[in-house]
Amino acid sequence: MKSGEILLLTAREIQSLLTLDECIGAVERAFRAYGEGRAVPPAVLSMHTGGGGCHVKAGLRELNRSYFAAKVNGNFPENSSRFGLPTIQGVIVLCNAGNGTPLAVMDSRDITALRTAAATAVAAKFLARQDSQTITVCGCGNQGRMQLKALSRVCRLETVFAYDRDGQQALRFSQDLTSELKISVRTVSDLSAAVRQSDICVTCTTSRQPLLGLDDVSPGTFIAAVGADSPQKQELHASLMAGSKIVCDILEQCAVMGDLHHALEAGVVTRANVYAELGEVVAGKKPGRESQQEITIFDSTGMALQDVAAAAVLYEKALRHGSGVRLNFAA
Amino acid sequence: MKSGEILLLTAREIQSLLTLDECIGAVERAFRAYGEGRAVPPAVLSMHTGGGGCHVKAGLRELNRSYFAAKVNGNFPENSSRFGLPTIQGVIVLCNAGNGTPLAVMDSRDITALRTAAATAVAAKFLARQDSQTITVCGCGNQGRMQLKALSRVCRLETVFAYDRDGQQALRFSQDLTSELKISVRTVSDLSAAVRQSDICVTCTTSRQPLLGLDDVSPGTFIAAVGADSPQKQELHASLMAGSKIVCDILEQCAVMGDLHHALEAGVVTRANVYAELGEVVAGKKPGRESQQEITIFDSTGMALQDVAAAAVLYEKALRHGSGVRLNFAA
Repeated sequence: MKSGEILLLTAREIQSLLTLDECIGAVERAFRAYGEGRAVPPAVLSMHTGGGGCHVKAGLRELNRSYFAAKVNGNFPENSSRFGLPTIQGVIVLCNAGNGTPLAVMDSRDITALRTAAATAVAAKFLARQDSQTITVCGCGNQGRMQLKALSRVCRLETVFAYDRDGQQALRFSQDLTSELKISVRTVSDLSAAVRQSDICVTCTTSRQPLLGLDDVSPGTFIAAVGADSPQKQELHASLMAGSKIVCDILEQCAVMGDLHHALEAGVVTRANVYAELGEVVAGKKPGRESQQEITIFDSTGMALQDVAAAAVLYEKALRHGSGVRLNFAA
Repeated sequence: MKSGEILLLTAREIQSLLTLDECIGAVERAFRAYGEGRAVPPAVLSMHTGGGGCHVKAGLRELNRSYFAAKVNGNFPENSSRFGLPTIQGVIVLCNAGNGTPLAVMDSRDITALRTAAATAVAAKFLARQDSQTITVCGCGNQGRMQLKALSRVCRLETVFAYDRDGQQALRFSQDLTSELKISVRTVSDLSAAVRQSDICVTCTTSRQPLLGLDDVSPGTFIAAVGADSPQKQELHASLMAGSKIVCDILEQCAVMGDLHHALEAGVVTRANVYAELGEVVAGKKPGRESQQEITIFDSTGMALQDVAAAAVLYEKALRHGSGVRLNFAA
């Protein structure tokens, strides 16, 4: 790159460049660095407007060089119905954290989807039973698709139950993923029955009421609670949280906007009941799953450390491949 | 703009589009809105690294449409000597704050320079004597040039004293600005003597020691203290702050990183001694200058409200002129 040049990466370029395996690797290394105390906590800034809000999530990552990334995202829940626009839109600005030079501007959608799914895959490596082969995906939108793809990279999945409030969405999910992953993906209408038969369950909905309680889950299950990323959202009943080993991405963020938030509010769990942050487990400071019987939960709210990790590997790969448009902004 | 398209504006395009008069107008309207309680306080996020830091300043502005801007800047003081790079580099991401859609990515350098100078010009309209014609510019770098140009838009300047620790820099400043502004710009080596003869003084250095005390300033002077934008930097002696009418851009930010910071630390000034924020004066909630004798100080630390105001007028003008490159990031 010439001095002053910024690499611009569109969604299409990002889709063709960034693989799930690379993203899982980058995110796992980032969580390990965080758990080892080698990564500073990410920072968040939010400004609320009428129908939503604009948010900046920023993180630093020391790799071959030092990277800073700021993800600038709008989150407007009524965008689809009001404007035919995605709920979340935005860009990631990647900078050299050694001298502040902006390196790249990237569409944020696919990086967010991949890094979120990658965190679940990393969590599954440490928190799911080794012999896990049956999974329920609750919420068959784009994030559900990515979650299943990511988990299929780290688990030998044989049976997938697809549940969605919108049966047509579950059907499309089943058709597409059966063909893409070459495994059996079946739609289900009884979520509870499906989860009770599953080794893994991923919830990635926009629900504001709990979808799963302790009675819906068999011993030994790993649950990735991905959907709740604001104080209003909830997918797991407080009783399920209380009866499980809870691992957070960031404790303080989960306490505000994860499923942990509601369990704390219900008074059935305290911060001291949270077993670990994922980084501590990946870094080997605490064991992950310790028995075949325990229910493990990964409370995923999403952190900028994942964004900067994914953006950095993407940037380096784009440079190697000569991808993207370069524009000299400083000229 | 087509859906998904982001407008990319380079430094050269920004220089040719954004005029000081437009920027002064936009910044004045932004301060007025803030003073009237129609603008939310801007937000800041910082992450420090070895030789500097990466910062995000974010603001909202309601105009014909609602805008959100996040300025992502690196600030690395040793960049020039170590890498031959500017100290501050970065981009501004402008979004539609009604739905979160990213609208533009712009180089941040010239927008920052113009909006900073524009704030001084706005402050001068309310805090300098109407008959001000003699000015000292202390610090003859790029910001000093822009400050003088902006002040020449709102004051009938006749004599300019140019002071810089680096005499060659002052000489170039004098030569260039004499020819550009068609007024007398003279280099001086005795800062104190020059300021005592001046109606206005702008300090825009990187000094960490006070350059001006109460004895250096005549009654009736307006001082714009622009350089201090971090806790270590200082240009005005606490005694000068204590003897003057202090107007801040944002009180709480000045208390941490402006010249106010050092006056508070010295114990000669309290928050209650600060006369106003500039927005209150522009909105007419408090009078500006109230006598020919008082010394007025504008403590300028820079706020995202100025960035979003300048970026929004720039964006709308670029659309009208068909300037910049458009790239569909979401495709």
